[in-house]
Amino acid sequence: MTVVYDSPAAWREERLAQQRAGLSLGVVPTMGALHEGHVSLVRRSRADNDRTLVTIFVNPAQFNDPSDLERYPRTLEQDIAMLRAAGADAAFVPTHGDLYPDGYRYRVTETERSKTLEGARRPGHFDGVLTVVLKLLQIASADRAYFGEKDWQQLSLVRGMAEAFFLPTEIVGCPTVRSDDGLALSSRNRLLSDADRRRAAQFPRALIEAATPDEAARRLATEGFSVEYVVDEDGRRLGAVRIGGVRLIDNVPRGGRP
Amino acid sequence: MTVVYDSPAAWREERLAQQRAGLSLGVVPTMGALHEGHVSLVRRSRADNDRTLVTIFVNPAQFNDPSDLERYPRTLEQDIAMLRAAGADAAFVPTHGDLYPDGYRYRVTETERSKTLEGARRPGHFDGVLTVVLKLLQIASADRAYFGEKDWQQLSLVRGMAEAFFLPTEIVGCPTVRSDDGLALSSRNRLLSDADRRRAAQFPRALIEAATPDEAARRLATEGFSVEYVVDEDGRRLGAVRIGGVRLIDNVPRGGRP
Repeated sequence: MTVVYDSPAAWREERLAQQRAGLSLGVVPTMGALHEGHVSLVRRSRADNDRTLVTIFVNPAQFNDPSDLERYPRTLEQDIAMLRAAGADAAFVPTHGDLYPDGYRYRVTETERSKTLEGARRPGHFDGVLTVVLKLLQIASADRAYFGEKDWQQLSLVRGMAEAFFLPTEIVGCPTVRSDDGLALSSRNRLLSDADRRRAAQFPRALIEAATPDEAARRLATEGFSVEYVVDEDGRRLGAVRIGGVRLIDNVPRGGRP
Repeated sequence: MTVVYDSPAAWREERLAQQRAGLSLGVVPTMGALHEGHVSLVRRSRADNDRTLVTIFVNPAQFNDPSDLERYPRTLEQDIAMLRAAGADAAFVPTHGDLYPDGYRYRVTETERSKTLEGARRPGHFDGVLTVVLKLLQIASADRAYFGEKDWQQLSLVRGMAEAFFLPTEIVGCPTVRSDDGLALSSRNRLLSDADRRRAAQFPRALIEAATPDEAARRLATEGFSVEYVVDEDGRRLGAVRIGGVRLIDNVPRGGRP
């Protein structure tokens, strides 16, 4: 059974009872619109911990583009049904007022690596991500937190924050889940037209097959993508493209298969 | 006995053992150069908790002025002796590398109230304070943290951060300790010449006795202080002055005695 908590205080009471009983906890922070990628995080958390909490909150602070926030899929009933099927013990679904009693006056910021790639294209994005993740981790009081490798830069910044601030929660990165045609699962995929969805599979293929980032970018441009960046960094090849007005990001191990 | 811990890992191990034994903890974050004001925080913590930890770390990130950082008194041996006498159970004395493995890339910032008064005169000061306090609170894993009311704006920002980020530690504000002549105890007082130290007592007196902030500022200027600000806010009268090159701050309840 998945019990839904809507206030930090209610969840904390439950977590305190768990801690008294010596139960370990994994947390999976999400923005809802759940798919098999999220479910794989829940499975991993269930394997590692006695209890698993999934948080669902579409965080305005991390959307630099209001129309992106507006269009972001919201499917709460389906989400809860998926969590039930996946065996999550609890869902935390706070309101904006619950999480931002301060009106986002207090923020976490990172001065270097959050300013490149996604951060360069989406000003303020990672401040919003790091701030909400810090809040959720403090509320959750989990032993481990699970993040997908698809958002590679986010994972690496969250890991850096946990180390810099000595957070007691271990950050666990999990492999990207892909469709049969190779496209990374993403809540934004459901915004693609059927034709664009078919073409989107060229994105990871180009990242994997091209000899250089420039070659991948040229190939994607030829195939009708608007390319924001393709770079090799930290042993990965990372890219961001737009297709049919939808922005997609992905990354693959450099020189290997995803 | 006061046991000195110099690494976050060593302290965490001790704290875990305390938690298993059900022992509550109070933490008193300081920059050393301890005086009776700090001792009063230790006493309060000992009254409220099973164990008391004092952290000693001169935090470069909160010094906007390098010469202020340079001159800041460092008296570690005396500090440890005072903590022993005061009955603190443990001292945490980290190096800069221990606390800033990230080189201060990850920061806490506050967008409004940290920009006025002290924040307006000391750019970046409160980012440094909030960041180091977050780190220390996460490492300490205390039930309560004790701060003096003398640094009123700091206390109020730390309290705000704890609420905004859902920190599990309760922030406890404690009354300012004063010399017989009324001057608030401060590590910086020992930088004053004897003559300036005697004149400094006029600072709290003017804050208390003047009918308006402007009157207090005029009176202090007449007495040879260089006045940075005097304002009434949140039911307090707050001021900052310089005398003989030493910067002093203080605050008193509006219309009452300190």
